[in-house]
Amino acid sequence: MLFDSLDDIRAFCRDLPAGDARAAASAANRQQNLTKPPGSLGRLEELAIWLAQWQGRESPRLDRVTVTVFAGNHGVAARGVSAYPPAVTEQMVANFTAGGAAINQIAGLAGADLHVVPIELARPTHDFTVAAAMDTDEFLTAVDIGYRTVPEDCDLLAVGEMGIANTTTAAMLCAALLGGGAVRWAGRGTGVDDEGLARKRTAIDAALAFHRGILGNPLAVAPALGGRELAGIAGAVLAARRHHIPVLLDGFVATSAVLPLARLDPGALNHCRAGHVSAEAGHRELLRELGLKALLDLDMRLGEASGAGLAILLARAALVCHAGMATFAEAGVSGTDG
Amino acid sequence: MLFDSLDDIRAFCRDLPAGDARAAASAANRQQNLTKPPGSLGRLEELAIWLAQWQGRESPRLDRVTVTVFAGNHGVAARGVSAYPPAVTEQMVANFTAGGAAINQIAGLAGADLHVVPIELARPTHDFTVAAAMDTDEFLTAVDIGYRTVPEDCDLLAVGEMGIANTTTAAMLCAALLGGGAVRWAGRGTGVDDEGLARKRTAIDAALAFHRGILGNPLAVAPALGGRELAGIAGAVLAARRHHIPVLLDGFVATSAVLPLARLDPGALNHCRAGHVSAEAGHRELLRELGLKALLDLDMRLGEASGAGLAILLARAALVCHAGMATFAEAGVSGTDG
Repeated sequence: MLFDSLDDIRAFCRDLPAGDARAAASAANRQQNLTKPPGSLGRLEELAIWLAQWQGRESPRLDRVTVTVFAGNHGVAARGVSAYPPAVTEQMVANFTAGGAAINQIAGLAGADLHVVPIELARPTHDFTVAAAMDTDEFLTAVDIGYRTVPEDCDLLAVGEMGIANTTTAAMLCAALLGGGAVRWAGRGTGVDDEGLARKRTAIDAALAFHRGILGNPLAVAPALGGRELAGIAGAVLAARRHHIPVLLDGFVATSAVLPLARLDPGALNHCRAGHVSAEAGHRELLRELGLKALLDLDMRLGEASGAGLAILLARAALVCHAGMATFAEAGVSGTDG
Repeated sequence: MLFDSLDDIRAFCRDLPAGDARAAASAANRQQNLTKPPGSLGRLEELAIWLAQWQGRESPRLDRVTVTVFAGNHGVAARGVSAYPPAVTEQMVANFTAGGAAINQIAGLAGADLHVVPIELARPTHDFTVAAAMDTDEFLTAVDIGYRTVPEDCDLLAVGEMGIANTTTAAMLCAALLGGGAVRWAGRGTGVDDEGLARKRTAIDAALAFHRGILGNPLAVAPALGGRELAGIAGAVLAARRHHIPVLLDGFVATSAVLPLARLDPGALNHCRAGHVSAEAGHRELLRELGLKALLDLDMRLGEASGAGLAILLARAALVCHAGMATFAEAGVSGTDG
């Protein structure tokens, strides 16, 4: 395994590769000369410069774009925290494979390959209200699986997930690492009713009490209160950093999956952008905590990388403008009067 | 001409075709059965239903998508309200034709045809601080040109503009029809400095005084305080309504161009969606007044249909999900526990 211990992850996060400041500066300079008022393409300009920075290329490319959806099952589902039965995780993985899910359509439109990575669906994590969700080895195995999914020649990676009950897990990680209790982080997920929401809050607060000795410790919290698909996402995001691949994060669950990395190193997510902000209550709050500004805000709350997949379209728009627009000199367009 | 008088436009707006409620209901029903929690695709679901409603098809299509950019020149430019000289309008039209502008790249990515419609660039409107910008005939001619640009078999129309000084014109229309004076509506446009912004406000407030007799009257204000490219947009939006074509509006200027229509009939823009909200100060305020919620918020302020063009990508995403996703029954995925 790549990471034989939690300390290996800690060490990896202390030595993360930086972006390429020179490529970023060159891209920013080109943006200034394109036929538009400086800054008028807003976040498209920022995206082009970010792609340049993390790919290390003044002219970034998006020839190979990958969407990876990790799936896992959760012991806490037994607490009645979701509107859907746990069997839906595996059924939706089959739907991804058959091409019938939203992310199949979105990835196809965005010109991205879709990888689906179920991690031990037959072995849900333990119910974290009464035990550790995973032991260290189980966690490291899932991180390792995620790390190894990332193709080194990928130009942009979008990560998402599928796992019945995993908005409870996401809220759990946030509550354990950022405070505020269940009331701050628990939302309706796939559409749980009032009673289900109450059960979700009860489960989270019970787990906060049970695990009170590890709260605030990212590498203790991630195994004990996380999930296999979340660990897979964290592994993939680390691999992307190592291989100079920019990353688009999906919604609340995918963002919570990398929260432990950000708590280990405040710059750990510099190669990531939030593809969207979901309608799930805690996501906006989590993005604020992480200093991430979402690219899209479309009231979506589906997961499966659907928001990050849409954001690929914006990255492509940023790229075609960056590469294809004429400069003022080329087009014979006058600059400002000033 | 289609409209021989302002009264013809008034009469047209009193008899606007409705959307197809049955197609919308069928599309909404299909969305409920697709493999996702109901509502979880957020605005993508709403877009699919909206396309169905205005195309009159349960399964909407986006085979022919058109981006139309109208261009015009403005007498008020002589007041020093823009960071760029008026010659840039024509230079940018040449840039559109040569393929070097942002909208060329965005329309290409979005699979849309780009139409560029300069309207009498050699004849700027009159300076509205001291005269009517256009007389009735000039206005009706520009509306007519806009109306005739719309292909009847178009599945989706995105409208935008190019015209140095036209954020002053847009702010003018808003101030004249919605109140609040220059301070509420004037922003920095292409990036005018403090002195330019002061000149912009002075011009708008002077025109409000000069034209005080017509303020609040949409069909008097649109010629006297508008612009040819704005009139063209209004004509195109009316044609789209007639031909059952949904419309994506671009930024502040394009939205202000259809404000007079909304003042004639509160439902006149029901077939329109705001492609984005721009960074130009007045746009968010104008959208609020019109009850339109923007699809994108990317700090863009370029015009030339760039924001509406990006929103085509979201319409395509809505469509591929609507058409391509499996239903719960087809995929063998369980529904909610409840």
